[in-house]
Amino acid sequence: MSGFSLETPAVVDVFTEVLKRGPIARIDIARRTGLSQAAVTKAVAPLLLRGLLSAHDNMRPTQPGRPVQPISVNEGAQLAIGVTVRVDEVFGVATTMRANVLHSVTRRLASTSVEAVVEAVAATVEALQRRLGDDAEKVLGVGVAVSGDVDKQHGFVRASPRLNWSTVPFEKMLRDRLGLAVIIDNDVRALSIAEEWFGIGVDAESFAIVTIGAGIGCGLYVNGDVIEGAYGVAGELGHLPLGPSDLVCSCGRHGCVETVASSSAILEAVRSAKHDPLLTMREAVQLARAADPDAVAAFERAAVIIGMALATMANLVGPSVILVAGESVTDFDLYEQRIRESFDEHTFGAAGQCQIVTRSHTFEDWARGAAASLLRASVTRT
Amino acid sequence: MSGFSLETPAVVDVFTEVLKRGPIARIDIARRTGLSQAAVTKAVAPLLLRGLLSAHDNMRPTQPGRPVQPISVNEGAQLAIGVTVRVDEVFGVATTMRANVLHSVTRRLASTSVEAVVEAVAATVEALQRRLGDDAEKVLGVGVAVSGDVDKQHGFVRASPRLNWSTVPFEKMLRDRLGLAVIIDNDVRALSIAEEWFGIGVDAESFAIVTIGAGIGCGLYVNGDVIEGAYGVAGELGHLPLGPSDLVCSCGRHGCVETVASSSAILEAVRSAKHDPLLTMREAVQLARAADPDAVAAFERAAVIIGMALATMANLVGPSVILVAGESVTDFDLYEQRIRESFDEHTFGAAGQCQIVTRSHTFEDWARGAAASLLRASVTRT
Repeated sequence: MSGFSLETPAVVDVFTEVLKRGPIARIDIARRTGLSQAAVTKAVAPLLLRGLLSAHDNMRPTQPGRPVQPISVNEGAQLAIGVTVRVDEVFGVATTMRANVLHSVTRRLASTSVEAVVEAVAATVEALQRRLGDDAEKVLGVGVAVSGDVDKQHGFVRASPRLNWSTVPFEKMLRDRLGLAVIIDNDVRALSIAEEWFGIGVDAESFAIVTIGAGIGCGLYVNGDVIEGAYGVAGELGHLPLGPSDLVCSCGRHGCVETVASSSAILEAVRSAKHDPLLTMREAVQLARAADPDAVAAFERAAVIIGMALATMANLVGPSVILVAGESVTDFDLYEQRIRESFDEHTFGAAGQCQIVTRSHTFEDWARGAAASLLRASVTRT
Repeated sequence: MSGFSLETPAVVDVFTEVLKRGPIARIDIARRTGLSQAAVTKAVAPLLLRGLLSAHDNMRPTQPGRPVQPISVNEGAQLAIGVTVRVDEVFGVATTMRANVLHSVTRRLASTSVEAVVEAVAATVEALQRRLGDDAEKVLGVGVAVSGDVDKQHGFVRASPRLNWSTVPFEKMLRDRLGLAVIIDNDVRALSIAEEWFGIGVDAESFAIVTIGAGIGCGLYVNGDVIEGAYGVAGELGHLPLGPSDLVCSCGRHGCVETVASSSAILEAVRSAKHDPLLTMREAVQLARAADPDAVAAFERAAVIIGMALATMANLVGPSVILVAGESVTDFDLYEQRIRESFDEHTFGAAGQCQIVTRSHTFEDWARGAAASLLRASVTRT
């Protein structure tokens, strides 16, 4: 993909800083990139000309000395589309260059066959293009996020247990269908990129983002980058072997965290205890809130293992902060206390100083992550 | 500490490349550092003058074109001392700038009291200085590695269960006693730095080094650096909660990997099965080699949990290769097969492509790690 066609590594570095932190003064760009102020000015020039960046007099009247001209990004100059694929629907957003959402669109998925998903993604993208009108031509490309083992570099979904896919050349299929630049990514990794560039990562030296829901995923940001995994797999918190070895996971392995802690595992446990195979998650949550012992036990059992998984990750990687997000985070009151207790019990030494913060996430955030992944690739692949 | 007093970031980058990879042509330094060839030549000049680097005509007679002058490091121009502190002894080495060992020295430790350890480290350093003779003045400083939670930046050992230390201002105590620049580090992290700069990491994009012995540690190298942990803790593979929750670890937590898989846990299991509290590790190994079912079971139980711990790390961090090292690696035949089976059983998707390689390690390697940590700090803190 052509991306932003940035001229030199210095231009990439400068554009990245402004995109992430703007408005920002040239001197601060120089400090952060390690470039000289002259090199920053030289790098900014073509970006101003192309309308990607703006410089404006913004001197506070009380401030002495030369006027400071902070540089900011014209975030509407180019746009991105991000799409997330779920088991029953496809969710898409059109965003600015700073991944701010302009429009969003949902399409039901009748099946998770590759063809059905490609068609639903295409319908979503086309609906967003219609909403954008003339601005549709500013779209750099489409980022598409799915759960599972995604080989982003070669454009393959290697294995997605939830979609029941293996070795799907998803990127090429989408590119052929859409006629646009496409990047595919693991959904949690995409969410991490959104946090890295436009969220918690702008100021944190390292962080983890953990999503709790139908699956349990984790994106890790350390040493200046998201951990991609040498073979494209990393952050598979839901598949750490911390659970009972007699439980079999949807991935086929024994004792994965998800066998106890995924929302379907919790629901299954409550259904089984209540002898009610039709019980809904909403009802299970209501039971737990009403202190029903079986429902409370199911959430607590999940919480204990999630806390162990977070402690495992903190002991291995030692992030500065863990952001817990995901669909179930609205029910987080049901297990937050137990997660923290279990985390405290198993973190080693100062690893326990790692903060756990929670943030509710929506489907829109997942799609926005896909857009952020596309945006980052557009900048760095230049 | 003053380190090498390198003038600019470009000089640091160039010196680092030559230190890690030399002899290396200027054009390759340029390619690897992203500097222009002119900038490389400019950066090399003061290093040649100071005798840290050399340039020599090394053109193969059959090669056409301009003579290539590869740049190499005069590895004896400055020296380092590395010391590792164990429960019963202190082991030290004097090394070149490329962490090649010139001399080594051992001192018995009568106690692990802080004072006794400081004195033993000082005696070790002084013995090495005597061995170095006039070259002792070339010593940049002393790196000291201990197991546990080490705050390298502030020079504190925050907690070392094995030494029974907490909150010890070890760096300052050593500096005051020795009158030399001192850096302290976690022992496994120091070993990782040695691998990063002078071993497997020179060519691998990411790697993990796992040490199996009295403790089980892990150093992780990813995204261009060793993972230090935001609070100084990372790679605590021995304290992941993958073991039986009824076993209490030396660190006070329940279910740590070390409760089953440390060499003392294995020995304890065999002693208990054989009703022989005086059985030695050597005897336990002999029993296992002779297919004694109790001894075999103890090693296999350890192997299964080590494999799970390696899989956990691969699923989370996805290194390209895992190097298994440590004292017990000589007995590795006793559990290698089971480790690999357990690893294969629990790695998620392509994470299982991660290679496991084994290398026998000696006490000298640990001390050399401490020297490498000092050397890296000397270069980058300039």
